[in-house]
Amino acid sequence: VAEAPPRPYTYGETQASIVAVVEQLFAPAVVGLPLLAREQVRARVGRTVGNPTAKAALDMALWDAWGKTCGRPVHELLGGFTDALAVSHMVGFDEPAAMVAEAERVRDTHGITSFKVKVGRRPVHADVAVVRALRAGLGEEVELYLDGNRGWTATEAAQALRLLADIGLSRVEELDPADDVLARRWLVQRCPVPYVADESVPTAADVTREVLGGSATMISIKTARTGFTDSVQVAGLCEGLGVPVALGNQVDGSIGSACALAFGASRRSTSLLPAELSNWMAMSDDLLTEPLTVSGGRMAVRRGPGTGIEVDEEKLGRYRTDR
Amino acid sequence: VAEAPPRPYTYGETQASIVAVVEQLFAPAVVGLPLLAREQVRARVGRTVGNPTAKAALDMALWDAWGKTCGRPVHELLGGFTDALAVSHMVGFDEPAAMVAEAERVRDTHGITSFKVKVGRRPVHADVAVVRALRAGLGEEVELYLDGNRGWTATEAAQALRLLADIGLSRVEELDPADDVLARRWLVQRCPVPYVADESVPTAADVTREVLGGSATMISIKTARTGFTDSVQVAGLCEGLGVPVALGNQVDGSIGSACALAFGASRRSTSLLPAELSNWMAMSDDLLTEPLTVSGGRMAVRRGPGTGIEVDEEKLGRYRTDR
Repeated sequence: VAEAPPRPYTYGETQASIVAVVEQLFAPAVVGLPLLAREQVRARVGRTVGNPTAKAALDMALWDAWGKTCGRPVHELLGGFTDALAVSHMVGFDEPAAMVAEAERVRDTHGITSFKVKVGRRPVHADVAVVRALRAGLGEEVELYLDGNRGWTATEAAQALRLLADIGLSRVEELDPADDVLARRWLVQRCPVPYVADESVPTAADVTREVLGGSATMISIKTARTGFTDSVQVAGLCEGLGVPVALGNQVDGSIGSACALAFGASRRSTSLLPAELSNWMAMSDDLLTEPLTVSGGRMAVRRGPGTGIEVDEEKLGRYRTDR
Repeated sequence: VAEAPPRPYTYGETQASIVAVVEQLFAPAVVGLPLLAREQVRARVGRTVGNPTAKAALDMALWDAWGKTCGRPVHELLGGFTDALAVSHMVGFDEPAAMVAEAERVRDTHGITSFKVKVGRRPVHADVAVVRALRAGLGEEVELYLDGNRGWTATEAAQALRLLADIGLSRVEELDPADDVLARRWLVQRCPVPYVADESVPTAADVTREVLGGSATMISIKTARTGFTDSVQVAGLCEGLGVPVALGNQVDGSIGSACALAFGASRRSTSLLPAELSNWMAMSDDLLTEPLTVSGGRMAVRRGPGTGIEVDEEKLGRYRTDR
């Protein structure tokens, strides 16, 4: 939690406020419960609305502690489907040549062949040019997909999709706002590839609303907002609905990425697509005694018990902002 | 598995065929996998269609073995929400006076105050008379609900519900066939209490179809057909959809009932309503070294590791039919 995010948390939670919520609200409600009374913990912290990141951190800490107690890694406790995930990498806004160079560097250094391209600028032609340049530079075999962070209108997004019809995109995410309800449905209905809902589906109930409302055809699961337990619930919901899922990234540092990796590897549905696990690479330092690694485009699960990570206490003392 | 069921298994599986499926199909596919590669096991046995009971037995055996390995009970591993469930008891077809006497005996002996009444005979008046007699004999405070096993048409079911409008039913289950698609929707739309889908929803995908199709407003979860892992998936689906669940019984013996109990106690949504856990009481013997008990209308979870039960090897040898 000491790694400074490059922009505010999605839910307006700051590091200090998460600590305050955990210490002042949640700890008094759950201290004394057995480690395996996870659903009791969930019910009690659920009495407080919002604060998904604090709830997720608490839930993942419980799983980590249980894994360390019984000596097994969390990805096994959650299902143990596989032991590595393909990694996708986010390419941020820049000139086409610079974005191609960055993607090439990541591909050549880490073997990553899946790229999420940030779009949403207007007019759409600048982003269209970037995507075309990436396809030309990286070849036909890499995965390219878009994330608009609601930057376009539905009309603009549809225009961009038409201009990119020959580019072989695999999926697109939040190109336009879900709150433009009917325009979003219109766009999703016409979208030739899965339309991923992310910030519009922070809870399972939101998944139901957006999917049944025709505003999404794929769901991004983020352990930073639904922890392990609620992520299992969302995955069960999506599997039961027949809606594919992708593993998203909330500008997670190394700790958060290790958590996402453990969850994603635990079941089939969350391990099918390249997962967004690389944001920690852009950070100047981390809190782990043993850093994360990407090899051949994949991240292997940590073999140690729990989340398999150990926090460097010296660094934690140096970076923490809450005391 | 050695307890003779009073009627054929819902899915046409016999005890011998379950054993054959496990030994000949599933064992070769999964032997050698780690105990915690549960989702790999699920994926491999999932290549065979059908056979839910055999798949469920295998899944629950994995959880039981893991619980026994790490020394914790399955209800804790699955979430640890509570330590006891209220029990409902099924009252089978008989004359009204005999059914009231049986319900009174169960209430006075075990403290059970929730009764599922089997209905579905025609004309509807015989069953209506039984339900009226039960309410008159047992008082206002017991829970009474109906299970038609698809015996009525939608028209007959609607007639019965009108005749019983003042009886205070809490829920009704499979009064008419789900395959009478439009008639079923018509009935569910008019039903004043939750309409439980059971045999029409053996899988998560069926839950989605029936709920979104308007053919059910509550879902029965049975560990005998979805094990622990798929039951978690179905529960996540229902919680995400905002559809309540009930814990059903597939004429489970003591072993199956202990499994259902462990799952039901593990999370909030499955522990809200009295659970169908009493069918073992009608059996002349069981396979456990320590029998199940009901006290004050509740069954307490088994405290031992795994499912908390031990099989009596002598009885198993005596009752088994597969060799």
